[in-house]
Amino acid sequence: MKMQVRAWIRGSAMTPFVSRSTSTFAELGQSAVLRALKDADVAVDDVDQVICGTGYGGPLSGQRIASNLGLTGPRVLNVENACSSGVAALAVATEAIESGRARTVVAVGIDRLSALGRGALPLEPSDVEVQQGAIMPAVYAMRAQRYLAETGARPEDLAAVTVKARENGARNPFAQMTKPTTVEAVMASRLIADPLTLYMCCPRGDGAAAVVLSANPPGDARPAVGLRAVALQSGRYTDGYRDMTRSELSERTIAEAYREAGVTPDDIDLAETHDAFAIAEIMYYEALGLAERGQGWRLIRDGATGIDGRVAVNPGGGLLARGHPVGATGVAQVVEAYWQLAEMAGDRQLDGAATAVTHCTGGGIAGFDHGSSGATVLGRA
Amino acid sequence: MKMQVRAWIRGSAMTPFVSRSTSTFAELGQSAVLRALKDADVAVDDVDQVICGTGYGGPLSGQRIASNLGLTGPRVLNVENACSSGVAALAVATEAIESGRARTVVAVGIDRLSALGRGALPLEPSDVEVQQGAIMPAVYAMRAQRYLAETGARPEDLAAVTVKARENGARNPFAQMTKPTTVEAVMASRLIADPLTLYMCCPRGDGAAAVVLSANPPGDARPAVGLRAVALQSGRYTDGYRDMTRSELSERTIAEAYREAGVTPDDIDLAETHDAFAIAEIMYYEALGLAERGQGWRLIRDGATGIDGRVAVNPGGGLLARGHPVGATGVAQVVEAYWQLAEMAGDRQLDGAATAVTHCTGGGIAGFDHGSSGATVLGRA
Repeated sequence: MKMQVRAWIRGSAMTPFVSRSTSTFAELGQSAVLRALKDADVAVDDVDQVICGTGYGGPLSGQRIASNLGLTGPRVLNVENACSSGVAALAVATEAIESGRARTVVAVGIDRLSALGRGALPLEPSDVEVQQGAIMPAVYAMRAQRYLAETGARPEDLAAVTVKARENGARNPFAQMTKPTTVEAVMASRLIADPLTLYMCCPRGDGAAAVVLSANPPGDARPAVGLRAVALQSGRYTDGYRDMTRSELSERTIAEAYREAGVTPDDIDLAETHDAFAIAEIMYYEALGLAERGQGWRLIRDGATGIDGRVAVNPGGGLLARGHPVGATGVAQVVEAYWQLAEMAGDRQLDGAATAVTHCTGGGIAGFDHGSSGATVLGRA
Repeated sequence: MKMQVRAWIRGSAMTPFVSRSTSTFAELGQSAVLRALKDADVAVDDVDQVICGTGYGGPLSGQRIASNLGLTGPRVLNVENACSSGVAALAVATEAIESGRARTVVAVGIDRLSALGRGALPLEPSDVEVQQGAIMPAVYAMRAQRYLAETGARPEDLAAVTVKARENGARNPFAQMTKPTTVEAVMASRLIADPLTLYMCCPRGDGAAAVVLSANPPGDARPAVGLRAVALQSGRYTDGYRDMTRSELSERTIAEAYREAGVTPDDIDLAETHDAFAIAEIMYYEALGLAERGQGWRLIRDGATGIDGRVAVNPGGGLLARGHPVGATGVAQVVEAYWQLAEMAGDRQLDGAATAVTHCTGGGIAGFDHGSSGATVLGRA
């Protein structure tokens, strides 16, 4: 147990991600939290804090989850950082443990997007670029256009990202998209924003995920897995040139996480990354250091990031197949990474994975300016 | 400098609280943060984290404030806990410092309620009691009715709370209500929810407040003031009897803060408490331990909580006069307490104040169930 961690993971759980849940917001969260506590073998009375990450949950989301569980002694608070709300919750939970103020903290990520109605996610209406139509599908379509123009990538490579995601998702009982697909079917699905077709865009949905963090390592019943790094960074203001093919914010955030954990991209056995759109995964291969600049597309073409490839990316199905209930995603990524390192990943279990990175990002125009990104590194002792 | 603190306060600022600001949300926050940094003599580059507490600010509130200030290297995150969002931000900021991960953290509280239109604050629509009409003025009117029925208090005692608040507010250049009033005028103002008249209800408004916290004590230029305690607790679920004249949640939260700071009510020189309605201040005298159960009204009748009384309560004007931009309040209370302890309170400066308590609460039906309350103790070394 010589590995240095910021907090140990004692247990985890997630609800199935679905397009429209029949559960209330509170019930979704309660399901994830209760099952995570059971998985961790931690009693309600031993929880010091509940940190709830949510993008659209509204006032007192965590309290609505916690109060009916009897989780009312502990400090409950809610954090929001758009698509990285889940990692923000993990960051607050981790510092609570490091501060010595808490021994056991539950981080829960949740959103119930079906309550918002259909269409693209609501963005900040005072944002000038949003006013001009720079909603997320449009932004990522621009990034894809530019990326395809500058590299050897073809639209079929984007489709291959979705095919891989769906393959993995079909093995994940918690995923929203349950059926595999083909490059042809992805290419033939409805065009959303050229070159992105419907299947290249992650589905919206409802779901929750929870992790129980502790100052103490777990017992011998399962491998000891901990958070070696939790990084959270924000976009830099610029009124100058923006390179649409590079995610400076994600790059910077992931670099901080690697530095904190003392690892390099070569150490990574699996990555959970923010494939809200198929092009994003390819760009994030580069931000994760798994490929050189402009070369990310080669990984998907070569099958290097499949579940049996050199480094598995999004073995849980990613946002494209697992789904993307905004606040839940950052925690669900850590849950998947935890399951892989603790050998609890069932049909999609990787062999001997010891180091994982998770990464999410969002807000603003593709992470510029008001954006927020989070990354964690998990290690198995 | 033997006083034990969790974090030192290096500087602070607040915008004037107004009913409708001509500034944007981001501009309001930027004004408070920039002036707090200047007050603290801390450079933008030395800030490790920005924690933004807001009730209704929407996605990425802190990023919208920080990015244009060049505060983009630091971790930025947003916390929400209804009316105690500001204290929740201070709690996260304090634990970040205690964790050793941050040396200098800005906690900013903000809301721009004019953007929501007129009327009572929007509450969670899925809450059964909200559906039945239990909005805040109704809930506090019920509490007032019961309190008046059970004690010797009269409606004029409620009016006297407002008169005191307005007197103090008239001396606070940042207060929303700038003119003193009389018991007669308060009693004659429009009835909102019997027995609460308009002037017994705090105004809604726009504003921001910021505090710069540090692991290091300040230099000799001004008295050293620190946070000795930051408590945050949530309401307990009950489907049984609820004593409307007692704020169990506030009592419990304040008790935790006192215990953490190692103080008793006798040590308190001034209190900033959550007088969203005049009855609330009287009930919180009791929760603060300044009066026995059912006896709080005697303090206002005897003038014991005036600025020249035994223990000054809401010297900054409280929510009734300073105003209540929800997320800003918890931080503004700490700013006022800091100004008093650091001898920067101008016309309303108390003499030799060394220990202050701040308290806010909100959410759910007057703090039951989904509620959240926060309290801090500040000390002067």
